[in-house]
Amino acid sequence: MAKPVKSADVTKRATSVRVGIEILPIPGLPEVLKGDDVARRILAACGNAFLALEPGDVLVIAQKIISKAEGRLVRLSSVEPSARALELAAKLKKDARLMEVILRESRRVVRDDHVLIVETHHGFVCANAGVDQSNVPGKDVVSLLPRDSDESARRIRTALMKRTGKDIAVIISDTFGRPWRLGLTNVAIGAAGVPVLIDLRGSRDRNAKTLHATIVAVADEIAAAAGLVMEKNAGIPVVIVRGYRYTPVLDPASRMVRPANEDLFR
Amino acid sequence: MAKPVKSADVTKRATSVRVGIEILPIPGLPEVLKGDDVARRILAACGNAFLALEPGDVLVIAQKIISKAEGRLVRLSSVEPSARALELAAKLKKDARLMEVILRESRRVVRDDHVLIVETHHGFVCANAGVDQSNVPGKDVVSLLPRDSDESARRIRTALMKRTGKDIAVIISDTFGRPWRLGLTNVAIGAAGVPVLIDLRGSRDRNAKTLHATIVAVADEIAAAAGLVMEKNAGIPVVIVRGYRYTPVLDPASRMVRPANEDLFR
Repeated sequence: MAKPVKSADVTKRATSVRVGIEILPIPGLPEVLKGDDVARRILAACGNAFLALEPGDVLVIAQKIISKAEGRLVRLSSVEPSARALELAAKLKKDARLMEVILRESRRVVRDDHVLIVETHHGFVCANAGVDQSNVPGKDVVSLLPRDSDESARRIRTALMKRTGKDIAVIISDTFGRPWRLGLTNVAIGAAGVPVLIDLRGSRDRNAKTLHATIVAVADEIAAAAGLVMEKNAGIPVVIVRGYRYTPVLDPASRMVRPANEDLFR
Repeated sequence: MAKPVKSADVTKRATSVRVGIEILPIPGLPEVLKGDDVARRILAACGNAFLALEPGDVLVIAQKIISKAEGRLVRLSSVEPSARALELAAKLKKDARLMEVILRESRRVVRDDHVLIVETHHGFVCANAGVDQSNVPGKDVVSLLPRDSDESARRIRTALMKRTGKDIAVIISDTFGRPWRLGLTNVAIGAAGVPVLIDLRGSRDRNAKTLHATIVAVADEIAAAAGLVMEKNAGIPVVIVRGYRYTPVLDPASRMVRPANEDLFR
């Protein structure tokens, strides 16, 4: 049964409505080149778009522009495929040089029948080690994931905070597939300044029962939210997630890698 | 090199900044009981919060309140465990009646060592078939997933559209774990009115190369975005995702279930 509405309630409710989250694309970011200062480029694009960063903003940055700035591009014509790469290429009907690049980026091959699923040196399990031919200039150029995407996130966060004087968190994202569900979702592969996992275990639900197994992958949810405006062909590689409440903390995305002894498929 | 900014550009950019997405929690929803009209309850809560639904809004609704409205609650004291349930309970050190409820909701057991991962009758692979003891009243009561969560979404969408005269999409969400990454994320288990998967294959990237394997699980990204304000203990089971541009279409969440012949671990 609804209680009568008192004016104090109304104010509180009307205010609480504003407690939402905004997902704001940053338009107009120019093509990023090797050696570019990504933080400076992002702030310039924000300025052009009359978008001022605010304390607590989480910047979600597509992996591709970080890889470009860090020079993580490989020309396939420069690659000599190994015997293993030639074997994989024959099996999967793919370019042996591409297979070689993927193997170099991998710690182990998880699956190699109609798709190539590997564990990267970071510990992420994904298709093709994140090696990708889209949105890179040149016909035989591929991009690799940043070498240490958590370190890249920390570096950009530091630069943004120094330039703006505000506490800004950074997530570096890429789109990964999942074993049982179709479609890719945007996930966090690097993070700095925002909790990656939030442990609700021990907290109580509305009926005062303990919530047992609830650890939420917040960084992946933030990346997914940004993914909604980051369609790959729209030229929006940086998105502001504003209004999400969190305690600033250096929590690396690598913490989301499931330990080998808990891996459901090892 | 940055081009000089013309005033027409400025207008366009300043406008495009507003093309963001808002994630708005709906506060003050009362406890939902069996037989409740969920659409009506949601609209009443929106009214109390001075939140008017707008055409194109996607309402993300936590599975739990749908299950309650549909009477999908089971009292464990009423359950007689089968031999299989007793066996699982001994192995996992869990309540045999709970194991029995989970088995009844499952098509197959995927894994049964320290966690119980099953495929539900819907085809979703998740822990404990989504059977859950949190946020349900009563000490030995558990909630089941809606019997047909896509049908539930369609029914609520129809009711909302009838009452508001606006095109509103509905996603029913639950938090699922993932095999290689720690933490749960909010995903879509029912959908109506919004595309679940968007196929970008064949479209071109900024460098006019074809994007190969890109099918985006948009419904899961929307659910994840809503998850950011839907923390389990905060009493926010319904969230508006506003500003996401899509073509209204009846696309069931069950379409995201990876077919058996493409399942990476079958």
